[in-house]
Amino acid sequence: MPDTFQQMLKAIQSFLIEEIYPLEEQLEAPFFSRLEPLLQEKRRIVKTKGWWCPQMPESYGGMGLNLIQLAQLSEILGTTPLGHYVFNCQAPDAGNMELLLEHGSEWQRTTFLEPLIAGKIRSCFSMTEPQNAGSNPTLMSTRAQLDNEWYTINGHKWFTSSADGASFAIVMALSQPDHPNPYQRASLFLVSTSNQGFEHKRNIPVMGSAGSGYISHAEIIYKNCKVPIAHRIGGDGAGFQLAQQRLGPGRIHHCMRWIGICERALDLMCRRAASRMLKTDKKLGDMQTIQNWIAESRVSIDACRLLVLDTAAKIESEGAKAAKVAISSIKFYVAGVMSQILDRAIQTHGALGVTDDLVLSFWYRHERGARIYDGPDEVHKSVLARNILKKYKDIAAS
Amino acid sequence: MPDTFQQMLKAIQSFLIEEIYPLEEQLEAPFFSRLEPLLQEKRRIVKTKGWWCPQMPESYGGMGLNLIQLAQLSEILGTTPLGHYVFNCQAPDAGNMELLLEHGSEWQRTTFLEPLIAGKIRSCFSMTEPQNAGSNPTLMSTRAQLDNEWYTINGHKWFTSSADGASFAIVMALSQPDHPNPYQRASLFLVSTSNQGFEHKRNIPVMGSAGSGYISHAEIIYKNCKVPIAHRIGGDGAGFQLAQQRLGPGRIHHCMRWIGICERALDLMCRRAASRMLKTDKKLGDMQTIQNWIAESRVSIDACRLLVLDTAAKIESEGAKAAKVAISSIKFYVAGVMSQILDRAIQTHGALGVTDDLVLSFWYRHERGARIYDGPDEVHKSVLARNILKKYKDIAAS
Amino acid sequence: MPDTFQQMLKAIQSFLIEEIYPLEEQLEAPFFSRLEPLLQEKRRIVKTKGWWCPQMPESYGGMGLNLIQLAQLSEILGTTPLGHYVFNCQAPDAGNMELLLEHGSEWQRTTFLEPLIAGKIRSCFSMTEPQNAGSNPTLMSTRAQLDNEWYTINGHKWFTSSADGASFAIVMALSQPDHPNPYQRASLFLVSTSNQGFEHKRNIPVMGSAGSGYISHAEIIYKNCKVPIAHRIGGDGAGFQLAQQRLGPGRIHHCMRWIGICERALDLMCRRAASRMLKTDKKLGDMQTIQNWIAESRVSIDACRLLVLDTAAKIESEGAKAAKVAISSIKFYVAGVMSQILDRAIQTHGALGVTDDLVLSFWYRHERGARIYDGPDEVHKSVLARNILKKYKDIAAS
Amino acid sequence: MPDTFQQMLKAIQSFLIEEIYPLEEQLEAPFFSRLEPLLQEKRRIVKTKGWWCPQMPESYGGMGLNLIQLAQLSEILGTTPLGHYVFNCQAPDAGNMELLLEHGSEWQRTTFLEPLIAGKIRSCFSMTEPQNAGSNPTLMSTRAQLDNEWYTINGHKWFTSSADGASFAIVMALSQPDHPNPYQRASLFLVSTSNQGFEHKRNIPVMGSAGSGYISHAEIIYKNCKVPIAHRIGGDGAGFQLAQQRLGPGRIHHCMRWIGICERALDLMCRRAASRMLKTDKKLGDMQTIQNWIAESRVSIDACRLLVLDTAAKIESEGAKAAKVAISSIKFYVAGVMSQILDRAIQTHGALGVTDDLVLSFWYRHERGARIYDGPDEVHKSVLARNILKKYKDIAAS
Repeated sequence: MPDTFQQMLKAIQSFLIEEIYPLEEQLEAPFFSRLEPLLQEKRRIVKTKGWWCPQMPESYGGMGLNLIQLAQLSEILGTTPLGHYVFNCQAPDAGNMELLLEHGSEWQRTTFLEPLIAGKIRSCFSMTEPQNAGSNPTLMSTRAQLDNEWYTINGHKWFTSSADGASFAIVMALSQPDHPNPYQRASLFLVSTSNQGFEHKRNIPVMGSAGSGYISHAEIIYKNCKVPIAHRIGGDGAGFQLAQQRLGPGRIHHCMRWIGICERALDLMCRRAASRMLKTDKKLGDMQTIQNWIAESRVSIDACRLLVLDTAAKIESEGAKAAKVAISSIKFYVAGVMSQILDRAIQTHGALGVTDDLVLSFWYRHERGARIYDGPDEVHKSVLARNILKKYKDIAAS
Repeated sequence: MPDTFQQMLKAIQSFLIEEIYPLEEQLEAPFFSRLEPLLQEKRRIVKTKGWWCPQMPESYGGMGLNLIQLAQLSEILGTTPLGHYVFNCQAPDAGNMELLLEHGSEWQRTTFLEPLIAGKIRSCFSMTEPQNAGSNPTLMSTRAQLDNEWYTINGHKWFTSSADGASFAIVMALSQPDHPNPYQRASLFLVSTSNQGFEHKRNIPVMGSAGSGYISHAEIIYKNCKVPIAHRIGGDGAGFQLAQQRLGPGRIHHCMRWIGICERALDLMCRRAASRMLKTDKKLGDMQTIQNWIAESRVSIDACRLLVLDTAAKIESEGAKAAKVAISSIKFYVAGVMSQILDRAIQTHGALGVTDDLVLSFWYRHERGARIYDGPDEVHKSVLARNILKKYKDIAAS
Repeated sequence: MPDTFQQMLKAIQSFLIEEIYPLEEQLEAPFFSRLEPLLQEKRRIVKTKGWWCPQMPESYGGMGLNLIQLAQLSEILGTTPLGHYVFNCQAPDAGNMELLLEHGSEWQRTTFLEPLIAGKIRSCFSMTEPQNAGSNPTLMSTRAQLDNEWYTINGHKWFTSSADGASFAIVMALSQPDHPNPYQRASLFLVSTSNQGFEHKRNIPVMGSAGSGYISHAEIIYKNCKVPIAHRIGGDGAGFQLAQQRLGPGRIHHCMRWIGICERALDLMCRRAASRMLKTDKKLGDMQTIQNWIAESRVSIDACRLLVLDTAAKIESEGAKAAKVAISSIKFYVAGVMSQILDRAIQTHGALGVTDDLVLSFWYRHERGARIYDGPDEVHKSVLARNILKKYKDIAAS
Repeated sequence: MPDTFQQMLKAIQSFLIEEIYPLEEQLEAPFFSRLEPLLQEKRRIVKTKGWWCPQMPESYGGMGLNLIQLAQLSEILGTTPLGHYVFNCQAPDAGNMELLLEHGSEWQRTTFLEPLIAGKIRSCFSMTEPQNAGSNPTLMSTRAQLDNEWYTINGHKWFTSSADGASFAIVMALSQPDHPNPYQRASLFLVSTSNQGFEHKRNIPVMGSAGSGYISHAEIIYKNCKVPIAHRIGGDGAGFQLAQQRLGPGRIHHCMRWIGICERALDLMCRRAASRMLKTDKKLGDMQTIQNWIAESRVSIDACRLLVLDTAAKIESEGAKAAKVAISSIKFYVAGVMSQILDRAIQTHGALGVTDDLVLSFWYRHERGARIYDGPDEVHKSVLARNILKKYKDIAAS
């Protein structure tokens, strides 16, 4: 990596520590409305510094980082729950931006993508349904019926993250429910949240709080929700394929961010170990159990980083499709390491660890989902194993 | 166990399922004020049924259960976060009742214990200090200075659970700070929460919520807090010893309750496994990973119950002091099993698992502390190991 | 338990420590021929003391212990790999004795059971086949063809433990290969190892050694092996059912023995921790990691013992069939605990731990199979889980 | 990596599969004498191919690979227990060669190094003592007394691997026992195994077998063992420092080899999963537990490889000293992964897994020491943690 890039990363790290970490104590709900003005101010600084929207091309006002550079930056941003938001590369907007950039029509890019990149609006992605196992996307039941150039969408979604306060949703619905290939039944649609057929039923209470604004997960009813045909992204029936294209890199983005969480948790663990006195002459860090946790955490994080960078390099050189199994691998591996390290970091802090005086409790709650969202561990392990076993087919036959 | 006792347990289980489980969805903060009228009504039913205050002697209006009976009942009550409260055997009141029953003066029993047993007031126990490692109680810094029959208490406590709304606190403070034996420096004091020197600084935000009323953990400042000498429980300097007597059984009470949590979590896991369809002909429960979790959880819970009952029998026959190491053992063992089972139960439910639509998320947050409060796992393991190694001293010397 | 029984257990423990533990250093192959004269002498002492064949009825020359007493004794015998052999209650003979006692004809009992109980001969049990998954007994391919009062057995078996030096085998073979109920196709046959059709192909090299005599696992070819009809145990087609009856208690016998192994391993771990100096003033036992291992091992062993005794009580009161699932549970649970404790005990000893100067290395190799033989963990977990999920069938339907 | 190197790796892999894997079934003791002629023949082929002694400079007859190339080759060689030996880069000879190459006098290089590189002789390294914790090298008690240009060595060593059949040992002994700096008390000495003071007491029985020749671990008594001063390697008192220089790369060599073991174990696991039928239409590889094992193993091995290559790159660019902590990290991490994968591979094979019909049982026994030799896990974790905590010293003070 060139030195200038490394220097920029250091500058960004300092910025986060000085400007953003202090805001963490206001994280708890109803956080967003309270924090928003402050965050907008920080966003202005980020723009001034030239750090805005790192994942978007420079021609669209972003930094145009490649995936390996983004991985390094994202790790640093991930050390605070507010990092990605302040740099306008947060999920689900980042994924929606990529989708519109690559598959949106010119009109869609002007109307939806540009204000998103500018940070004027937010968006959401509406795929998961409460009644159907997400691990089997062919079980989807939301429908989009075409009639005279208009689609009418009916269905029930949940975990439409950040819908509260978003301007539009990208909705997955079956437009060709009877297509013989189940992977060609769905399409993606841009739906304004002010559409009369878009009913924000509730922010789902998750881990003790329904959250608000950006930090929330909504349950949405689509009831005779009409959108013109121009709101369909890509071809009729391309929805599943586009969602996969969006989710693949999305998973690696999560992994990059999780490594940042791990580093912060380990740092907090070490600070506590180095400063908490058990007796006059004995620190917490002198205890071998704590040393074991620090050592195991350190090497696990290093392993995660190398795996993620390796996968990013594979995506850069061979494309997301070729890296599909590698992405499945890091998805469950990094999520597992993060869970373990957060747990150890809390335990290291004793009673303080469960309080909201530290950021650990936020992640303990908000990232329990990491082993579930975008495919539970169990599904990704199975994907990986079955892919490996394919190479052994001949042995089976022999 | 006699049949009538088993029949009563079944009746109580039905009562909880029908009357109390439905209240769980109102658990989230600000829960207590909203739920309290409903809970008071349930308490009246419990009294009518003759199930009130199971751990107190019949002469005081309780059921007079022995520890083994209590363990069985407590497991059933533990299947809902509201169970113990409705039966008036919740921490920290239950421990305070025991303490006052055994060591309170007649006046203290009349004034503090009787209304507590009657369920007219609540109480709290104020021992932990933010600046000092709880694992080393000799590090305490709160002082109680005696002057002319009045004690003046100064100090800083936190995790004084349920202080919000309580009528009085039992406070641990050094009354003999210079006693050569560090275990004879502290005494226990009854302090009314309306005392001018009792400052309720805040309910500590824990796992995303400061809670309220019974479900809260307070930070308290004692500032020139004056109490007459008649408010001291037991002898001058007996505080540490009394607190140990209170904590020992307190730990087994937690274990009993945790087994109830485990059973409920396993039950929810099985319900999900039996009903969630992955494909037309495949249920979640057909997956071997889920089967492994169910099997490992089942045998672990059974192991916990046998260990807890065995320890209860030891306490009954030999006293809490003789069972000290056994109590340390089950404290960390059962807490560990519970953590694991809650984690599996959430994972089994996918996205639903992290929502507050199930009680699992409540326990995931509120019981993360189980491996910390009343002594972290690491301390209890050390207590047990050093106790075992004592028997090998001669080998060391040889 | 009556005092006299407890006193006897102590006497037996002393006997083992003084007379049998010292023989362990001669355990390694070709052990049996070398050790046998010494072991026969010890057996004579055991008979004199009245401790012979504890699991057999007094009328047959045994001690007539019930299952709970046997569990306690077996744990003590299990602290040395030679314990059960010296008391003539070793697998596979103990299981064969039970089978013959309950289902053998009078002639079979006189001819095969009595010399077995007397310790004059040894036996083996020939069920597992190399080509077929043991977890699916209906896949068996060994056949027993009846012709004119003689059965002709043809087939290929392995892991016929202790066949080397045994007088007879009990062989499972399909006598009714076309029976519509696959569980009624097999029968059990008594086959003398001197039968011309019994070919002892090899002692299978296991974990570096083919072993010899009692400590060995044979591969056997049955080639036109003829036995008269009087050699069939129980009814035609009863083989599978009888084998299950034999395996159920056999599994609990293993569990009992494994607890003895665990106790010995923990004892060795503690001895090392108490005596190994790391510095002038620091013992291995002062290290927190070692303390963690000791503590976790202690409570796990206690859990195992309580689970095993609980299962034994269930078998005594309700029969082995009713306890089938409980037996599956302890089978995988205790085997898992043992693996972990042996691993920790070796690690605690450093380089000494992998040498044969300690008995740990013997068990590390010979008990790796514990999680495999008599049903691998994975199968037992599945049995338990599916049994639990049965109770949730109605939920699935609703 | 250049294509030609990758092609060579493939050629070597084919060579191993065709020529060396078939020899594995003769691995068991007394293996070496039986296998030696065959292995010598294979060595001749390796020399012919130009693959000899990959870690030595070309000027000495080796391949002159850098550490990253060596890591890739070593992984491939590690897939069979015979690989490194056949290529003459086996421990402990490889480490001794490096030591002599860098620190040996010209005479020492001619006399000891050259025949070693030529494969005409073998050597051993004699450091560990039975009475002293290896984790504290300052506890060493073997002495080397200088008198009139001759050193007299007295002491007791064990786990002097491959001493049986070796031509010489490199022995660590205190030549300056009273030096104020405990790390400058020891020196290294070349001792011929035919020296009258070199007493090969026994090959230590390890995991059931004392082994022989190359596959053995000796206990050695040095009794008035005299060597001329010219046999000292490096300066007087430099022994500890030189041993550290030797051990650092030695640890990474182990890691490289262990990854090969992991790959082979995973390959065997997959072969079994793909071919073992549980029912007519169900393979072992369809079971989710097996899939979990395969997936977790795959990603863990990839993590290990990336960590090891990263550490090799650090050694290449910054030197072994700067990479000391990184080496500690991979030492315990890779050893842990290997243990787990070997265990899973055995379990996947059922009864076959514990037999010597597969190479798994060899590694299960011979590599249990991996978490112990060259520093137990616990020590390496502590080294890593204390190194990390150093950076937090200021926090502690504040």
